[in-house]
Amino acid sequence: MKAEIIAIGSELLTPDRLDTNSLYITDRLNRLGIAVERKTVVADEHNQLRDAFRESLTRADLVIATGGLGPTNDDLTREALSELLGRKLSLNNDVLRTIESRFRRLGRTMSERNARQAMVPEGADVLENSRGTAPGLWLEPDGHVVVLLPGPPHELQAIFSKHVEPRLARLAGDTRLYARELRTVGVPESELDERIAPIYTRYGDVQTTILAGLGEIQIHLRTWSKDGPAAERMLDELVELIKLALGESIFTTNGQSLEEIVARELTLNRATIAAAESCTGGLFSERLTRIPGSSSYFLGGAVCYSNELKTAWADVPAALIEAKGAVSPEVALALAAGIRLRTGATLGIGITGVAGPGGGSPEKPVGLVYIALADAAGFKEHVMRFPGDRERIRWHASQMALDTVRRYFLYAGQGKPRSAGVKS
Amino acid sequence: MKAEIIAIGSELLTPDRLDTNSLYITDRLNRLGIAVERKTVVADEHNQLRDAFRESLTRADLVIATGGLGPTNDDLTREALSELLGRKLSLNNDVLRTIESRFRRLGRTMSERNARQAMVPEGADVLENSRGTAPGLWLEPDGHVVVLLPGPPHELQAIFSKHVEPRLARLAGDTRLYARELRTVGVPESELDERIAPIYTRYGDVQTTILAGLGEIQIHLRTWSKDGPAAERMLDELVELIKLALGESIFTTNGQSLEEIVARELTLNRATIAAAESCTGGLFSERLTRIPGSSSYFLGGAVCYSNELKTAWADVPAALIEAKGAVSPEVALALAAGIRLRTGATLGIGITGVAGPGGGSPEKPVGLVYIALADAAGFKEHVMRFPGDRERIRWHASQMALDTVRRYFLYAGQGKPRSAGVKS
Repeated sequence: MKAEIIAIGSELLTPDRLDTNSLYITDRLNRLGIAVERKTVVADEHNQLRDAFRESLTRADLVIATGGLGPTNDDLTREALSELLGRKLSLNNDVLRTIESRFRRLGRTMSERNARQAMVPEGADVLENSRGTAPGLWLEPDGHVVVLLPGPPHELQAIFSKHVEPRLARLAGDTRLYARELRTVGVPESELDERIAPIYTRYGDVQTTILAGLGEIQIHLRTWSKDGPAAERMLDELVELIKLALGESIFTTNGQSLEEIVARELTLNRATIAAAESCTGGLFSERLTRIPGSSSYFLGGAVCYSNELKTAWADVPAALIEAKGAVSPEVALALAAGIRLRTGATLGIGITGVAGPGGGSPEKPVGLVYIALADAAGFKEHVMRFPGDRERIRWHASQMALDTVRRYFLYAGQGKPRSAGVKS
Repeated sequence: MKAEIIAIGSELLTPDRLDTNSLYITDRLNRLGIAVERKTVVADEHNQLRDAFRESLTRADLVIATGGLGPTNDDLTREALSELLGRKLSLNNDVLRTIESRFRRLGRTMSERNARQAMVPEGADVLENSRGTAPGLWLEPDGHVVVLLPGPPHELQAIFSKHVEPRLARLAGDTRLYARELRTVGVPESELDERIAPIYTRYGDVQTTILAGLGEIQIHLRTWSKDGPAAERMLDELVELIKLALGESIFTTNGQSLEEIVARELTLNRATIAAAESCTGGLFSERLTRIPGSSSYFLGGAVCYSNELKTAWADVPAALIEAKGAVSPEVALALAAGIRLRTGATLGIGITGVAGPGGGSPEKPVGLVYIALADAAGFKEHVMRFPGDRERIRWHASQMALDTVRRYFLYAGQGKPRSAGVKS
């Protein structure tokens, strides 16, 4: 079954807005074994809308259109499709009553123009909208399926999961999507692909997509099959081979974030953590506290931008800062050790560097960051040179610091943390 | 002049990737007075590509296609367009030499397959790519313009600004885009629209788009004109009227972020700031230190998740926490005052609340946040109830804290900070 998505709305043709509903829809369709072959964004303009529907119906079995179902004169999706299909559009009293009662529940009066939203093309099924006024519509012209959905994502998703998916599941057959999402940190994209291409290219039934994000690379593995257990076995096998090739740089095989993984390790090991950050400005603490329940392992973070606060909050000796400079491996280690002792945490993290754009020098260029981890037994320290602008450098540094904690637990119970050596 | 954009690439039809190049292109085209009437996303498939070009050329004067110019067999844009236009595709030796020398400069050997990227359709102009191997191509079939650009954004943008814009500017006539971007905080979207709709609807030549973001609303005003000074005057007039309607809830009229505005106020007033955050976990400090040069006004931030650290780092009396609870107006004020005295900053910010999903109670539900600001003369405090999940609550709280600093400076020099009262 081949699908096309038409996103309707003049605002989607400005520089300010993207159609993101199609990502959700594509994901749900793919799970049903339905591929999306084209996406079109078109303005709220009668003839253009009609033409877009006509063209899509010549190519696709299923056309899903989003938007243009509002109450105003700008919303023309119903009219354009009805004209194309030669179906009469008429007021549906059930829908009208549903809209009226929705307004009553909210203590408001329905305005005249909302009645537009109760207009239904001849022969269309109404898909109830539990979160808004415009219902979805399902039509089956000449053996095709056309679904109209309102644009607001929470309305669209409620209608899709409740009404559209079950209907499509009946039409779509037994094929389903099976997927894995691996994420890695620390291996450059070209090197990663060189290592795993010989593996994944042998799995012709699995669609492999490699996405380079900031400070991590995602490997999406997807396969469609009528035989679930066989598909799962194949994916498991492929994941195992990729793990052999990439080793501990993989931090998840089911799409978790790095902070989730670190949170899990801290929790499993009943460890606590505190951080003293300079150039990252609180980003490490902020990311770790995104996770619900973080107060059980995160004790606190000091954003010590000034030298005085490095001394006051993390007991970094002023003489050390004077002698080595605020951006130095010695100060990173002192921040980690100091914040650990101050807070009584199992682990301390220290981060100091030059995020730029100013403040760089030939010896300490923009992008140079020192990251240190301290536990009761010793220290571990990295020096990294990150590319990009201030935002990217800060993100990379927080990513590297989180990964330092993750790798620490890979060796926990094996004595002193491994020395990581120097990379650049 | 009417334009369409075709984004080419099978990965753009998965749930993982969106075409974002079209936002950049739309912005640049709009500035030249060229409207984008349709966007299409199509797979790297010869016939589908050819059909997409054919359809767009029946409707638009200008077709800009992105992607599918890579060196592999999957990249078929050149071939599909050449077939459609009946133009021979042949090796261009200048392009080949440019690609070879690029590889040499990087110390690598050009692989055979990169020669594909030197294939040029008959009559096409080559647009040099300073950042990659695939050049852009410019064709003028039958009075239309077709531009092919590589997919990687930094390559596309370099070619577009250097080669495509000057050529389009000559074709596009004198009409140009004039724009303003207002941003507001503290007024709900429906109320905002109610207040300004009577104003902006009187300006039929100005396209007004209202975008609700997290904790702020953006008002985009755009108009196309051949008469620059008149357009600027009209926008200035409209902006002044909107300012009368929305007052100090507007924090920028040229699209700056709230943290940029706060940074500017701190700098102009030669003030410094420090923060003691609990539920926001460092987000306030992180946002304020995103701004280059923030070390001149941001002294430091304490993420005091535990009660002990609230006392140790911001001198919040343990008895106060015991008596009032960590989430209380008293503790927010003590955090603000304590961090201010500790760091010697002009202003102190204290944030404490329940970010959820756990930790709520009937008296102190999830979303309840206390925000306090302290200066030498006194205090200011808000209690807010924010909607949404953990991430949204934390963002809203950081937004409100930044806005508290901004509003402080609106009244600076007028004595004690205004009491803000209680909202929910």
